Amino acid sequence: MKYPGPFLRLIESFKTFPGVGEKTALRMALFVVENMEDESVQLFSDSLAKVKTDIHFCDKCHMMMETTCPICEGPHRDHTTLMVVESVREAIIIENSGSYQGLYHILGGKIDFSKGVEPGDLNIDSLFKRLDSIKEIILSLSGGVEGELTGSYISELLNDKDIKLTRIAVGIPVGSDLSYADKRTLTKALNNRVVYKKE
Amino acid sequence: MKYPGPFLRLIESFKTFPGVGEKTALRMALFVVENMEDESVQLFSDSLAKVKTDIHFCDKCHMMMETTCPICEGPHRDHTTLMVVESVREAIIIENSGSYQGLYHILGGKIDFSKGVEPGDLNIDSLFKRLDSIKEIILSLSGGVEGELTGSYISELLNDKDIKLTRIAVGIPVGSDLSYADKRTLTKALNNRVVYKKE
Repeated sequence: MKYPGPFLRLIESFKTFPGVGEKTALRMALFVVENMEDESVQLFSDSLAKVKTDIHFCDKCHMMMETTCPICEGPHRDHTTLMVVESVREAIIIENSGSYQGLYHILGGKIDFSKGVEPGDLNIDSLFKRLDSIKEIILSLSGGVEGELTGSYISELLNDKDIKLTRIAVGIPVGSDLSYADKRTLTKALNNRVVYKKE
Repeated sequence: MKYPGPFLRLIESFKTFPGVGEKTALRMALFVVENMEDESVQLFSDSLAKVKTDIHFCDKCHMMMETTCPICEGPHRDHTTLMVVESVREAIIIENSGSYQGLYHILGGKIDFSKGVEPGDLNIDSLFKRLDSIKEIILSLSGGVEGELTGSYISELLNDKDIKLTRIAVGIPVGSDLSYADKRTLTKALNNRVVYKKE
């Protein structure tokens, strides 16, 4: 059957999302046509259009924002600690955990020579322009070769600065079964073991 | 963190889809902000808006269409056979299988007194207005109490008409393992067994 044009284009749009294949895209497009109210679809359409026109990225930390940065201009933030993360996604995950009150610096990726991503493609220059009042930088980059490489690169550039450099601990997730942990995580968790009770 | 308004509304829109929870909605909204090109987002937004303004439903079969019904006005259709399905979704699934060339009639739901869906809420009147040249009606309603009830209701109304009434076979899917079949399907598949080799 030949689908109506807007319906076909809607399927194509849904298919661009990661993890969404032909069947799921069709199911989502049908949900829009058959089950969503006109007003909800209009709101959805408007939100999409506005996401690109009304959302900007902070000049300093590269977080998404409307008029002012919710982090850099947010109340009660610790302006001496900076967490380096790969993308807005990681910053939001950390932020939603409620366990961090400092500032962020979003790199916009990781160094990955195999994909042609070099240091110059990331927000690294802008990181070094905002270190004046910073006392500690926390690297929260994902594991793997690219994360390690990006971390070392930043670490080397910081060598001559009087700034403490840390990175979030690698280890076994709280409540997780040891048998599910992979070998590398287990090795790192053992090496990073902390004192539980002194002798 | 306080999300920018359009971003928050986008998450809410994604959350209305079946099977999409808070985390998936956030991931999809972030994909729009971080990974989709401006033009793709604009196309997505336009398609959504146009789905509701440019897509209509056929007066006869209730299939979605732009200007003419792809089924009722489609070429090479068998205008003597009518398949009764629950929604556009089922019609599209049958249509995409390429195994049916007749017409459809989309009920827009199933009789379900527990949810207050009565025969009058479905496209049943319009079904009986288009039976003039119909020789066979195939019921392709999903199993379960509501499907059975809707089928019986239509069946009774057809009692005095000279129209063959059939329904698609219930059985084991092609290539499927017997051990995955549920008891009811297995019972029906046994009752509906066909002759493989005559004695």
